[in-house]
Amino acid sequence: MTDIRMIEAAAARLQGHARRTPLLSSPFLDEIAGRRVFVKAECLQHTGSFKFRGAWSAVSALDSATRARGVIAFSSGNHAQGVAWAARLHAVPSVIVMPADAPALKIANTRALGAEVILYDRATEDRDALGARIAAERGLTLIKPFDEPQVIAGQGTVGLEIAEQAAEAGISHADVLVCCGGGGLTSGIALALESRAPGLRARPAEPQGFDDVARSLSAGTIQRNAALTGSICDAIITPQPGNLTFPILHRLCGPGLAVSDDEALAAVALAFLRLKIVLEPGGAVALAAALFRPDQIAGEAVIAVASGGNVDPEMFVAALKTLG
Amino acid sequence: MTDIRMIEAAAARLQGHARRTPLLSSPFLDEIAGRRVFVKAECLQHTGSFKFRGAWSAVSALDSATRARGVIAFSSGNHAQGVAWAARLHAVPSVIVMPADAPALKIANTRALGAEVILYDRATEDRDALGARIAAERGLTLIKPFDEPQVIAGQGTVGLEIAEQAAEAGISHADVLVCCGGGGLTSGIALALESRAPGLRARPAEPQGFDDVARSLSAGTIQRNAALTGSICDAIITPQPGNLTFPILHRLCGPGLAVSDDEALAAVALAFLRLKIVLEPGGAVALAAALFRPDQIAGEAVIAVASGGNVDPEMFVAALKTLG
Repeated sequence: MTDIRMIEAAAARLQGHARRTPLLSSPFLDEIAGRRVFVKAECLQHTGSFKFRGAWSAVSALDSATRARGVIAFSSGNHAQGVAWAARLHAVPSVIVMPADAPALKIANTRALGAEVILYDRATEDRDALGARIAAERGLTLIKPFDEPQVIAGQGTVGLEIAEQAAEAGISHADVLVCCGGGGLTSGIALALESRAPGLRARPAEPQGFDDVARSLSAGTIQRNAALTGSICDAIITPQPGNLTFPILHRLCGPGLAVSDDEALAAVALAFLRLKIVLEPGGAVALAAALFRPDQIAGEAVIAVASGGNVDPEMFVAALKTLG
Repeated sequence: MTDIRMIEAAAARLQGHARRTPLLSSPFLDEIAGRRVFVKAECLQHTGSFKFRGAWSAVSALDSATRARGVIAFSSGNHAQGVAWAARLHAVPSVIVMPADAPALKIANTRALGAEVILYDRATEDRDALGARIAAERGLTLIKPFDEPQVIAGQGTVGLEIAEQAAEAGISHADVLVCCGGGGLTSGIALALESRAPGLRARPAEPQGFDDVARSLSAGTIQRNAALTGSICDAIITPQPGNLTFPILHRLCGPGLAVSDDEALAAVALAFLRLKIVLEPGGAVALAAALFRPDQIAGEAVIAVASGGNVDPEMFVAALKTLG
């Protein structure tokens, strides 16, 4: 199980490979939120999202003979790009299994980052059986997107940096809002803050209608989403919190927050205008909560993790239209 | 005259106030350029451009009695915002003199950053006389945009960071392309690199048709632009290099490069897609040169300074259309 020592070990392995992303702020955002807002710009991480950290952590933790055979992941999104690039930088093969109807740009990007992309037909093929067969044939190691201790440890390095950067900014007590899908990033950050900055408290931020983590925290048991499609925040839609992540979230996190798609788009636009960073809607959910849920947040400052920036130009243009 | 000791002193005054902006990269940009490309993301600086550094340097260098009376600047652009915010953070007044037909958003932003904005009619009023009268009445100190030793020293802190970050990335020999208007940023960086990273060479990048600095370097004497309007790279259009900056540029810089407006827009779009940062066209000129003038650059790596990100949504949408 992931603990602070695993996170510290992951940080040592990531040193010189992952970026230490900046903690940004703007007086214009402070005014909207009614308190100081700090944004951990993880969209500036390699491959455009925090997923590179967990992927690097997992790949680098393998023994060298296992790693040399290669890795495999199921993803058409940020996890795919993180695993592909981490494998490429380790000079080992990667196989990414994607649905054949994934956007052409995502397939092309993942291939360009060095992966072999294997497409399957969602209607007729069993993804897990296909992946298991390929993995067995080639001796590949599966890198899960969140419910995997070394992945959680890698994402937790975001929390180590937040603890340091908040201290530099003079912030010792604040909520740390985290865009939350399966909970790998949120649980990793929560573990890091528990040890390094106990006055900072991680809280999951999710799209309205897909707030399985918030409801699971309220109920004390894992709850599922009723639907898995219908939000533009696709990067952070998962069926339910993970079996490894949920106990950590339950022990350490404050209550979840949920925002609408329109609020996520407005946060994308404000991050463009005031911070000069590019966010995808799912990566802007925590910032949206910081800006538009002031009554659900306590304290003079709030920290929002901007988890990813892999957004299509068309969606970005739609966001900019909210600026009026 | 600015020298490395003034830049180091400016860096000490900026410590904890200016951001150490990241040096970003992407394998996709490397492939376009045919060499490794590193981007110094100064768009992530406070107020969205490097101008905050020079403004902070100049304001913080004043003796306290002089500073307390306040500062004045002539600008409707990035320098205005940098001076306004640096003065506000020093808790001293600032007056920004702008033409009455400046965009309403820029006027509002500069006011929101704490400045008193005084508008003048370009057709009927003499800006310099107006500013001189206000400065004399109130005892304000004029902060020039580039031809001022403490401003050059502040911009030079970008060069100190580039020297450190290039060394961390293993780069000891490379061209450093800098978006260049009056030459404050380029000359400051050139001075810093001369002392700290002599294998790195600053080179100005300008819009085609407004390449006064490139032509001045070729001629060995200051040359003027034939026109001052007609480029979307308005942030870096100036009549000619400064009397203080030109001797530094002439002594230290490599030949200038020039790019078209379309190439600047394409660089804005690629920075969005591959680096997740927001650039204005004038702030993307150096990146455009790195990507689209490979034959004019030597070496296995190139560093481009992305100097600012204060772009209107409409212009950004136009840039995204170049992605096809």
